[in-house]
Amino acid sequence: MQLRIGYIGLGLMGKPMARNLLKAGYPLIVHNRSRAAVDELVAEGAAEAGTPRAVAEHSDVIFTNLPDSPDVEQVVLGADGILEGASADSIYVDNSTIKPETARKIAVALEAKGIHALDAPVSGGDVGAIAGTLAIMVGGPKDAFDRALPVLQAIGKSIIYVGESGAGQVAKACNQIMVAAQMVAMGELLILAQRTGVDASLVIDAIQGGAAQCWTLDVKPPRLFAGNRQPGFKAHMMHKDLGIVLDTARTYGMPLPSASVHTQLFEAMLQLGMRDLDNSAVLAVYEALTGEELLEKAA
Amino acid sequence: MQLRIGYIGLGLMGKPMARNLLKAGYPLIVHNRSRAAVDELVAEGAAEAGTPRAVAEHSDVIFTNLPDSPDVEQVVLGADGILEGASADSIYVDNSTIKPETARKIAVALEAKGIHALDAPVSGGDVGAIAGTLAIMVGGPKDAFDRALPVLQAIGKSIIYVGESGAGQVAKACNQIMVAAQMVAMGELLILAQRTGVDASLVIDAIQGGAAQCWTLDVKPPRLFAGNRQPGFKAHMMHKDLGIVLDTARTYGMPLPSASVHTQLFEAMLQLGMRDLDNSAVLAVYEALTGEELLEKAA
Repeated sequence: MQLRIGYIGLGLMGKPMARNLLKAGYPLIVHNRSRAAVDELVAEGAAEAGTPRAVAEHSDVIFTNLPDSPDVEQVVLGADGILEGASADSIYVDNSTIKPETARKIAVALEAKGIHALDAPVSGGDVGAIAGTLAIMVGGPKDAFDRALPVLQAIGKSIIYVGESGAGQVAKACNQIMVAAQMVAMGELLILAQRTGVDASLVIDAIQGGAAQCWTLDVKPPRLFAGNRQPGFKAHMMHKDLGIVLDTARTYGMPLPSASVHTQLFEAMLQLGMRDLDNSAVLAVYEALTGEELLEKAA
Repeated sequence: MQLRIGYIGLGLMGKPMARNLLKAGYPLIVHNRSRAAVDELVAEGAAEAGTPRAVAEHSDVIFTNLPDSPDVEQVVLGADGILEGASADSIYVDNSTIKPETARKIAVALEAKGIHALDAPVSGGDVGAIAGTLAIMVGGPKDAFDRALPVLQAIGKSIIYVGESGAGQVAKACNQIMVAAQMVAMGELLILAQRTGVDASLVIDAIQGGAAQCWTLDVKPPRLFAGNRQPGFKAHMMHKDLGIVLDTARTYGMPLPSASVHTQLFEAMLQLGMRDLDNSAVLAVYEALTGEELLEKAA
């Protein structure tokens, strides 16, 4: 029998991911705080529910995609939450990026009712969410992963089982260490190049074919040179994720000097009033520090 | 008429690059401080010369690939150097990574004798040098670049003209900002993953398909999990290059908080006695800080 899917949290990432589940032919029921995204998906064939509990009552696999750890805790364990509505042997999949410790706590609470939880944060930005090519890093019971895999294949391309509950969130924290490093490095090198009088876009052409090659340099410079700093992935979410990284590192007794500097730079970006811009726009911190502005450049 | 090539500096990078020029059919004359590499290339068909001056006397295009700015200055401008031997209208190509200011100074000195200088540092490591797939970032007179391009195509795949003298070195400094960021981030995330009890190699599998994707994560983890920390690209060269980055940034009035922390971490690696290991082995600094050792893992 076709699995019935529920999706809660239709933001920049959640909406296109839910849409891809619908396109793949799954019956879909959605819930979201603001209405616009719900209306859009209902027009495309989804059903809607008034509470997370109601979503769970009508779903075999319940997804969430929410901003932060407390949001997920509330939607799963709070009043009218998923725990109240979900049936035994249903699967809960969290696509949010939250603390590994919170993921583990939620998994234990759900398992007590026979509901299997997978922490399944994603990477690849809105581009990957729309194209259905996200990387999905999964923690939780292996048999639940195996059952959920065909569903996950509708939203992602690289779907890796990392280990028990929380392991997916650890992988995502690791992912964000690398992503933040690349975003900040790109900011430093773009503004440095321009400041020395060199064409920064030619520098990107020159370095993206060597050891510096990365998704960030492949995808972001064309947008930046076109004057486009819209998300993508919002700076305040990057900052939030880095908070999870540093919190996890502190829990396990691990100094992270580089990730900690990058956190400070995103903090600076937020203080400059740029919380809703793309994370690649962290270069604005370097613009503020030098008075240099990245020149626009035709593609 | 076939261009005659000279190559000075047959190290980890220079030797395979010179070999690729020989394989491409160019008459090649070489010079190197230590003999072993010279003997190897002579056995394969190269001629040898006792001084940079003698190399230049017999070459239309003279390459250098040397550790640092003073070495290049000495070999080009010093006694028995390239400046003394090269003919007017010959082309000097420097594959070393040196200060943009030094590259400009050398270009001016050579141009006074009608010798055209290209700063042409490379990226892609020993892997790229052997395979002839390096990224080459070039600064200098555009017509000299056009004449040298067919020769450069024997050693590189992505060959980009960035701008006037020094622009290639600026691009390389920018490249090293990104490479250092990726190497350090990889060290932080590998040791963090393992310290939380998660399989670090599965974390790499999980994140390399998303926004964290980079050459570093594609190439280095298999070596590291196999216990191989040999270069590749030596830590003390990475440290030297970061010195150029910070020096250039200071010259142009540009704060680089992230690159500066990475420089400190490579400094720590050198102080731990690991100057000749691969730059990816900067994770050893995190091992030293935590007592955690990266577990070997079958591929």
